[in-house]
Amino acid sequence: MADNQKKMVEAITPMQDDFAQWYTDVVKKADLIDYSSVRGCMILRPYGYAIWENIQKDLDARFKETGHENVYMPLFIPESLLQKEKDHVEGFAPEVAWVTHGGSEQLTERLCVRPTSETLFCEHYKNIIHSYRDLPKLYNQWCSVVRWEKTTRPFLRSVEFLWQEGHTMHETAQEAMEETERMLNVYADFCRDVLALPVLKGRKTDKEKFAGAEATYTIEALMHNGYALQSGTSHYFGDGFARAFDITFTGRDNKLAYPHQTSWGVSTRIIGAIIMSHGDDNGLVLPPYIAPVQVVIVPVAQHKPGVLDKAGELSARLKKSFRVKMDDSDNSPGWKYAEYEMKGVPLRLEIGPRDIEQGQCVLVRRDNREKVVVALDELETVIPQLLQQVHDGLYARALQNMNDRTYEAHDREEMVRIAQEKNGFIKAMWCGDLDCELKLKEEAGVTSRCIPFEQETLSDRCVCCGKPAKSLVYWGKAY
Amino acid sequence: MADNQKKMVEAITPMQDDFAQWYTDVVKKADLIDYSSVRGCMILRPYGYAIWENIQKDLDARFKETGHENVYMPLFIPESLLQKEKDHVEGFAPEVAWVTHGGSEQLTERLCVRPTSETLFCEHYKNIIHSYRDLPKLYNQWCSVVRWEKTTRPFLRSVEFLWQEGHTMHETAQEAMEETERMLNVYADFCRDVLALPVLKGRKTDKEKFAGAEATYTIEALMHNGYALQSGTSHYFGDGFARAFDITFTGRDNKLAYPHQTSWGVSTRIIGAIIMSHGDDNGLVLPPYIAPVQVVIVPVAQHKPGVLDKAGELSARLKKSFRVKMDDSDNSPGWKYAEYEMKGVPLRLEIGPRDIEQGQCVLVRRDNREKVVVALDELETVIPQLLQQVHDGLYARALQNMNDRTYEAHDREEMVRIAQEKNGFIKAMWCGDLDCELKLKEEAGVTSRCIPFEQETLSDRCVCCGKPAKSLVYWGKAY
Repeated sequence: MADNQKKMVEAITPMQDDFAQWYTDVVKKADLIDYSSVRGCMILRPYGYAIWENIQKDLDARFKETGHENVYMPLFIPESLLQKEKDHVEGFAPEVAWVTHGGSEQLTERLCVRPTSETLFCEHYKNIIHSYRDLPKLYNQWCSVVRWEKTTRPFLRSVEFLWQEGHTMHETAQEAMEETERMLNVYADFCRDVLALPVLKGRKTDKEKFAGAEATYTIEALMHNGYALQSGTSHYFGDGFARAFDITFTGRDNKLAYPHQTSWGVSTRIIGAIIMSHGDDNGLVLPPYIAPVQVVIVPVAQHKPGVLDKAGELSARLKKSFRVKMDDSDNSPGWKYAEYEMKGVPLRLEIGPRDIEQGQCVLVRRDNREKVVVALDELETVIPQLLQQVHDGLYARALQNMNDRTYEAHDREEMVRIAQEKNGFIKAMWCGDLDCELKLKEEAGVTSRCIPFEQETLSDRCVCCGKPAKSLVYWGKAY
Repeated sequence: MADNQKKMVEAITPMQDDFAQWYTDVVKKADLIDYSSVRGCMILRPYGYAIWENIQKDLDARFKETGHENVYMPLFIPESLLQKEKDHVEGFAPEVAWVTHGGSEQLTERLCVRPTSETLFCEHYKNIIHSYRDLPKLYNQWCSVVRWEKTTRPFLRSVEFLWQEGHTMHETAQEAMEETERMLNVYADFCRDVLALPVLKGRKTDKEKFAGAEATYTIEALMHNGYALQSGTSHYFGDGFARAFDITFTGRDNKLAYPHQTSWGVSTRIIGAIIMSHGDDNGLVLPPYIAPVQVVIVPVAQHKPGVLDKAGELSARLKKSFRVKMDDSDNSPGWKYAEYEMKGVPLRLEIGPRDIEQGQCVLVRRDNREKVVVALDELETVIPQLLQQVHDGLYARALQNMNDRTYEAHDREEMVRIAQEKNGFIKAMWCGDLDCELKLKEEAGVTSRCIPFEQETLSDRCVCCGKPAKSLVYWGKAY
């Protein structure tokens, strides 16, 4: 039995029965990943990697449009370099992989495999920043990073993952803060316009912020099951790292000053968000603009004369405008329908002898199975409309889910009760104290997701301690 | 002093004085790389990385056109996995970096940082190949690898480097051999048509082949100084790894069989080949099709009314068709000319008040400083022609260098004498024995570069031992 036939024998576990198992089934059966003997690391298979390539391509263009340049930094960080910024090393040292030997030789200093590259960028920036004329530096890199996680799940948490990390240096705090916000907006716009993912934008509490940052901003998406997933972050560092690494520049006033810094990242984790926001019991549902295959052509009664020829001709024609695959294998149309639903292909194009006679074909949407009969010479017009409709449909459904699963809590009992009964965002006022954050985690099992940019006043009291509230916070269970 | 002004203070060491220092000066002063505190690893700066991005983009399209798909494998290889194929582990174990700790915990099994990924691909292929219908598998990955080299030089030999590694599995030996050759040709065509690099194609001797391969094919380029640089390799494995990893499939005859395997790779090393084949005493000379900036616009007398406006308008217009940069900084035109010569920009466009009056501009080629006056409305026609001329000029010059520096040796004394007096390819007949290969290395300081596909007969005797010759070999000093 060939590999692709083997996997169809068992169906996907329904979401309602076991969401975690549904997720695992989808990532495996849609051929996104495979496991290996390397604990906690995953293999990105062609279909999974192609999604990442499309994400990269779109994000990279957005980075370049906003003036950023790509670089590549070393994979390793000497222990002494990692230790230069105190908070940073405290946050990361417990979860890094250490290289101790090169060949048969023990190293005089251990090297960690980069968990993130602030320290390497700072060392480089010290070399190349001397004057205000050298600023801003707007760098980004695409690479993999390693964090020694105990419990791992494909895309969501793995020992090694792919990501991009932007690292920028600015003349003033103001410019760096604007950059931090700009890149958070680039991420949020990308999620909305490309991934059909609505996200909540806000600031992390001090407890949840990045090790070494002054402020961390986040976009939070809400999964089908009501769990939150942090999908991208943007950090403002002030001049903390610059001071630790002694990076200075001569300013316009001819005085030495420290530059102000940001970093921001999105990882393959966001593929987990796509799966758990759009998928259904038939498998993956991919947002059209990153789908490796946007239209799959399934010939019907393909043994009949002319069918394969016509389908092949269509395929060649449509490939000029869309990502198209034709499946002319021996498998039955029914098998193919199930296969490409599993793989989340946004549109299926069915074409058989009668269609050909009438100069038409059938297009079926993956998200709602709506069928439309389309004249063959109108495909270049209709397909983009349908792709946009699928995109809009996915976005609307995900937004509906987020709205339906956003609750309000006015006191601690209510918070605990909601958290016990439901999964979702819980809006509640907070006094700003770590103690309350810890208590809510202990009693309700929720963490602060963010202090949203769009503030509301539900009451003037902290949901936990009843003291005066400082801000509205979204709380929730999270991946 | 800003960083970009600082570096211009010192000129580049002339090639004739010290080729190694010339090379180091160019990679640093053209802003390709920077060093870091990570021994043997380099930082690819924006200009250097942009060259790699252009190489990637072009090669990746060629891989996809020939049916390959991208995947991503883990960074780590468990020691036991690396050891499965005997020759392979012998070749690589002495030069791998070992991870022994995750956080504060010692690992039960050491992990090496991948030096190459045959073993990981084989483990995965065992999972997904069951039937002849699952073949061929044509995978590639873009990533970095680590080899614990003692002596390192930017691009040429570094502890970590970027590359692509193709790994394919086939139903028959014949198909795998065809793939090995196909990919070598993809590399050679790419070198000729995109990098303007002539290369010699051939097979490595057993001594020089890849650890675990049955046969290794190579493209060898010749640098300005007559040193050879192995610029890409393609390996045929037979079913050796398949047997070691117990990868079997049910064939068309319903019997179990082992698949046949290839791998092939090109790395950032090839940027070293570009520098040392095309560069000159003024700095880098970039082949137009991978140059991050193809045309630099330098306004002349830019303080005069209308000059910057016109230059800006031209820049916006030309950006639609080419990679264009306009430098409207305060630096003098002379400074700018030197700067973009250093950076190897193929064409410089000068435009001043008189040019504007006459509706024209001056285009200057980087490779030979030829100037042409071009009407502004003809730029979209003339620039592509000039870029192709620069490309052809670079190729012709490099080919001339290769031909001029290819010698023939008929006996050992002649070989030793040529090798003492000159650097270049030395063609000579070989009996096929390792002893002779070792003796020539010891006495003449040359290694076998390859057994070229295009064979000649210089004599019927081995250049070293005088016994009957089996083949013509190209020998030389190499990076």
